[in-house]
Amino acid sequence: MTPEELVATANRLLYMEGLADTAGHASVRSPTDDNVVYINPFSVSRGEIRPKDVVKITLDNEPVDPDAPDPVAEAEIHTAVYRNRPEINAVLHTHPPIATLFSISGTDLVAAFTRGAIFDRPVPVYNRPDLLTTREEGELMMEAMGERDELLIKAHGAVVAGEDLKRAFTRTMYLEINAYHQLYASILGNANTLTPEEAERITETTWRQRSIDKVWNHYVWEASQNGYLPDEW
Amino acid sequence: MTPEELVATANRLLYMEGLADTAGHASVRSPTDDNVVYINPFSVSRGEIRPKDVVKITLDNEPVDPDAPDPVAEAEIHTAVYRNRPEINAVLHTHPPIATLFSISGTDLVAAFTRGAIFDRPVPVYNRPDLLTTREEGELMMEAMGERDELLIKAHGAVVAGEDLKRAFTRTMYLEINAYHQLYASILGNANTLTPEEAERITETTWRQRSIDKVWNHYVWEASQNGYLPDEW
Amino acid sequence: MTPEELVATANRLLYMEGLADTAGHASVRSPTDDNVVYINPFSVSRGEIRPKDVVKITLDNEPVDPDAPDPVAEAEIHTAVYRNRPEINAVLHTHPPIATLFSISGTDLVAAFTRGAIFDRPVPVYNRPDLLTTREEGELMMEAMGERDELLIKAHGAVVAGEDLKRAFTRTMYLEINAYHQLYASILGNANTLTPEEAERITETTWRQRSIDKVWNHYVWEASQNGYLPDEW
Amino acid sequence: MTPEELVATANRLLYMEGLADTAGHASVRSPTDDNVVYINPFSVSRGEIRPKDVVKITLDNEPVDPDAPDPVAEAEIHTAVYRNRPEINAVLHTHPPIATLFSISGTDLVAAFTRGAIFDRPVPVYNRPDLLTTREEGELMMEAMGERDELLIKAHGAVVAGEDLKRAFTRTMYLEINAYHQLYASILGNANTLTPEEAERITETTWRQRSIDKVWNHYVWEASQNGYLPDEW
Repeated sequence: MTPEELVATANRLLYMEGLADTAGHASVRSPTDDNVVYINPFSVSRGEIRPKDVVKITLDNEPVDPDAPDPVAEAEIHTAVYRNRPEINAVLHTHPPIATLFSISGTDLVAAFTRGAIFDRPVPVYNRPDLLTTREEGELMMEAMGERDELLIKAHGAVVAGEDLKRAFTRTMYLEINAYHQLYASILGNANTLTPEEAERITETTWRQRSIDKVWNHYVWEASQNGYLPDEW
Repeated sequence: MTPEELVATANRLLYMEGLADTAGHASVRSPTDDNVVYINPFSVSRGEIRPKDVVKITLDNEPVDPDAPDPVAEAEIHTAVYRNRPEINAVLHTHPPIATLFSISGTDLVAAFTRGAIFDRPVPVYNRPDLLTTREEGELMMEAMGERDELLIKAHGAVVAGEDLKRAFTRTMYLEINAYHQLYASILGNANTLTPEEAERITETTWRQRSIDKVWNHYVWEASQNGYLPDEW
Repeated sequence: MTPEELVATANRLLYMEGLADTAGHASVRSPTDDNVVYINPFSVSRGEIRPKDVVKITLDNEPVDPDAPDPVAEAEIHTAVYRNRPEINAVLHTHPPIATLFSISGTDLVAAFTRGAIFDRPVPVYNRPDLLTTREEGELMMEAMGERDELLIKAHGAVVAGEDLKRAFTRTMYLEINAYHQLYASILGNANTLTPEEAERITETTWRQRSIDKVWNHYVWEASQNGYLPDEW
Repeated sequence: MTPEELVATANRLLYMEGLADTAGHASVRSPTDDNVVYINPFSVSRGEIRPKDVVKITLDNEPVDPDAPDPVAEAEIHTAVYRNRPEINAVLHTHPPIATLFSISGTDLVAAFTRGAIFDRPVPVYNRPDLLTTREEGELMMEAMGERDELLIKAHGAVVAGEDLKRAFTRTMYLEINAYHQLYASILGNANTLTPEEAERITETTWRQRSIDKVWNHYVWEASQNGYLPDEW
């Protein structure tokens, strides 16, 4: 897929899964220029975005093409990650309906289910719920995120990074699936979490290329099957 | 859109979102006569209403055309708002499945999520759950609502007003989305709410014309995409 | 509608609403013979039943046509109501996913929402969860139900009766909608219920022929719209 | 149905019901060779699997055809059951979103609803959440399962066995339906469970061939109706 197709596809999968609607966005770093990011425009719904709608910005959050439509208001979330983390090539900002709750209640979101084993330590929380629109805020966010690949923004949403888009997407899905299990197990009494040893062992057997491919392929198939992705762009 | 199209569209979006079914209704004030309101008829399902079904009443809740079908039984909810609040041009009465719970349990519904930042103070509650069918009840309801744009009726539903329909609709959606986050965060322990300062800052950056347009356009697109709105009326 | 069409339609609406699937059934008393009941056969899925599948039994739970397919195993639920309550002409037995919970936890299910105002006193519970297959069990069930139009069977489901099918169906929907509001309000703290005076006043304004017609017509429209009811039988 | 058709059909029903997506799998023992198992391949989504995708392995978890695609990573879950339980001819491994919660919180999952009466004793839990990929782990799992037909794997999922596929599928559905009732009744206060006597009586009247056929036929019909099963393979 082209970078534009990756961004459009990610948005539509997130829309299908209820993780993005009027808000939420995806980006990938240009494979040919580390300083360029492909990202959502401001105005197009996440369920109908097409590759031709995708816009390009620099790591300084400046438009590559000054005549292009505006990027999303919070493009800085993405550029802050790319500036600070050279190994990261895809970023998703979502409003996951369950994971976000942990940032509201101040509860640790941490591995409690096999598919959440990659979250062996509590997901960090950035405590300022505001829209992230300035470079200063982006840098403060990165202080909270550090070297982690996932972050909650208090009362706002999640930021998930990946070496590639498949990893960022699978990690986003696992974050919400793990959050679901923690939330509802807590109704029964105690949402016991995995021990660090369990989490590490399970990550070793599940966080593999063929498993990540399987997850991505499943959601692409499901989206195609149900009209969330067109037969061709 | 014509006033009739606005009322029909609002009903169908609310039906799609589970906020109206056999009950719930929308109105707009006539752009040419402040004393006239366009509103649902009693008998037509909210998911199938068409512009030609919409009826007109005066602010005294009298039919403009005595031969037209009856308006909804609770038209007084709408006329009471329009009589008391000249700046309001659209009113939605819904039965939001989560926001209503706060009026049952007596819990403050207040900003806990970015998209609920506009509810920086607890949403007022009108404590009489009865159907609102008389002018006296309408005036009592307005005492509870005052200058606020949103109100819960105890064990019954919500009333949301707006300078225009897009604002009333977006506010209705945000009310329910905020309620969702408060309810489910409370399962985890504490549904911390935004500070007044946080709520004010976030409102400044999110409650803007282009954001409200984006929300409205998203739901209109989604409704068209899924058969909730016809290709043409 | 013919009695067969009423039974088939009720089943399909209940299936659409998640109140019947492999189980649950509907019956109506014959308009021409008080001793005859039209009811589901055992084997046909509730979502695909057609008028020609409907079978007839007597109030003694004997087949009118000995060569007809078996009725549902729990036909006695229906015949017990008809034998004891001459004013009742329709009975629905469902497994409502929320109302049933109250019979498991031993919590009173009682008016907490406007559309549940008709349940002004706690819904009675029959404390034997077994399948009801004998006349003796049917009579014991009626001792618990008495003159009420709704009953929970412990850890099993609901029985709702009506002077006609529209009333039995609307009452069934309201039972589940009220149960939803009580359950989820209890997460917030206290699921306050309506006072008997509030419940009585609201019932007077909502439990009217035109309101019941509106509810029935809405669900029939929704079912037709979404393929749950065929264009013609 | 052929063994390949049974495996493909079971996967698609589980996908429809939200019990399998990128994970979860079904197997049946060969009717002509007790040492051979038909099972999912690793890479095909559970919602799109076709009979020709199904692979064959021995009870030692070796491929019958060395050139066939890999089976699922956890095929050992299935072969361990077949090796130890000669009367079992079908095994389903799912990630049921509610039943699994009980293994996280350490709460007994036990009969609380008529359709869960077959779980008259608490479902056993295997306390190692790891992927099950070795024979040693399979044997440890069987120590936890013993002579029971259902098992939870801690923070991971469920294993359900049956004399035939219809029984394994119906038991899987009942496990999740019972878990739903226990979980949500606990919000109301106390999720009272059936007494052993109640559970035994209800099992006698519900766990019969014609009831199991009815459940299976219902879901096959529903899947065909909604595009989860093709008109022909």
